[in-house]
Amino acid sequence: MLGQLARRRLGLLLFLHGEQRISNGLNGVSFNQTHRHTQSSFNTRSPISTMSLWPFSFQPRDFSLPNSSWSPEMCKAYDHYNALCDTDTENGEEKKRGPWKKLPSYNRSIKYATGGIHLSKLIQAKARLFTRSVKEQGATFEYVVFVNEEEKSCVCVFQAGRLLEGAPGHVHGGAIATMIDTVTGSLAGCLSGPIMTANLNIDYRSPMPLGSVVLIHCALDRIERRKTFITCKVTSTDESKLYTEATALFVSISVGHLFGTRN
Amino acid sequence: MLGQLARRRLGLLLFLHGEQRISNGLNGVSFNQTHRHTQSSFNTRSPISTMSLWPFSFQPRDFSLPNSSWSPEMCKAYDHYNALCDTDTENGEEKKRGPWKKLPSYNRSIKYATGGIHLSKLIQAKARLFTRSVKEQGATFEYVVFVNEEEKSCVCVFQAGRLLEGAPGHVHGGAIATMIDTVTGSLAGCLSGPIMTANLNIDYRSPMPLGSVVLIHCALDRIERRKTFITCKVTSTDESKLYTEATALFVSISVGHLFGTRN
Repeated sequence: MLGQLARRRLGLLLFLHGEQRISNGLNGVSFNQTHRHTQSSFNTRSPISTMSLWPFSFQPRDFSLPNSSWSPEMCKAYDHYNALCDTDTENGEEKKRGPWKKLPSYNRSIKYATGGIHLSKLIQAKARLFTRSVKEQGATFEYVVFVNEEEKSCVCVFQAGRLLEGAPGHVHGGAIATMIDTVTGSLAGCLSGPIMTANLNIDYRSPMPLGSVVLIHCALDRIERRKTFITCKVTSTDESKLYTEATALFVSISVGHLFGTRN
Repeated sequence: MLGQLARRRLGLLLFLHGEQRISNGLNGVSFNQTHRHTQSSFNTRSPISTMSLWPFSFQPRDFSLPNSSWSPEMCKAYDHYNALCDTDTENGEEKKRGPWKKLPSYNRSIKYATGGIHLSKLIQAKARLFTRSVKEQGATFEYVVFVNEEEKSCVCVFQAGRLLEGAPGHVHGGAIATMIDTVTGSLAGCLSGPIMTANLNIDYRSPMPLGSVVLIHCALDRIERRKTFITCKVTSTDESKLYTEATALFVSISVGHLFGTRN
């Protein structure tokens, strides 16, 4: 029973994370609490066959694409890393440009899963990913993650909106922690497969003004059996100012972990 | 110049945190990144004279009072701690009942400050406290904090809404970190005055299902000069299940710290 159920759920969850990773097997799929990125875009690659079971015609929105709320500083940082991405698919052709990949980012699971009726029994239908749950552009978390698999690192460009306030005029420590969890988890998921956050250790070095655009740099420290250790620092876009430093530990999980079917 | 400006700002910020703490001086006022509670309620006590400068007639909403989104489990836990609070003011009389105090919680600073025009130059007018920024009741963070000053501890009753999702069906690690920062910061602010978060070290022991009601228990570990160390654990309401453990370090700050007027 575990096997049958787990395989079905595995299929659903794999699909959440994009077709490229399905063809690669488990490697690169993350069940991390923090992100719902994929390593390839629904917009630029042909969908796999299960996509046809999705009953609606619209494409899911990739929240990590530029929008009108992005400041010039945000756009500049995005353009910088986007120009280093591995392929250019704008004209239907793929050309190698660099070692980076932009991760698309969606706000829910169920839209992108086959077998939605089954999944809806497990997940509240109105649930939304925390970092993408406010519709107003620019109000909360505007961010995009780029991964460099060769260097086992990633960088996130993050613009902190007006609803993330902690101390007057500054970003809430919990909002910064949320982004650190999200970005370190994205990298850990890419490198180690299905994972969950086990520890976050965050040093707040300097208060971050609301509206700031910052870079969140993450790198693999080491992998020890089921444990993946990531280091992280948050800086200004010119990297002259250090806002936050952190380490994160993720533990690889079995597919049934979240659904109570693990042994 | 620093003195004049700092005193004016100090007045504004003190007011954010309620009239009781103004009469007590700095002790108990927090500039922590995470919370905007007071130790006394605008709804139950007569306002101080500066309140008359506030040009609107409505009272600020205390977000930590029960609402229709609260589950029976949430209401039961609230009732339990509310019954232990120090004074009963429902009939206009104050009767000692126990060592606990409920902290009210607002979603912005400027509404409760005199000199709003001045303050609005420093703070984006549309900024809102991260944990209270979504209007829909029950969608994100529903919580109430009770402090026990005698025991130097506090407890928060927290209900996790549908927009806080991380892994499918479970609460985002960043949302849990946000609540830990908020509640540990509330206690540190009560005990040490103006503080900011310096470190959060969070161990995620078990995934927390969306919709859960949990207790966040915090206690003072120690105070060393400018450093206040708080311990924290997140459990089910019957305390049988441990979700998360954490330590937090807060550093006392000068009044001008956030506004760049410190030496």
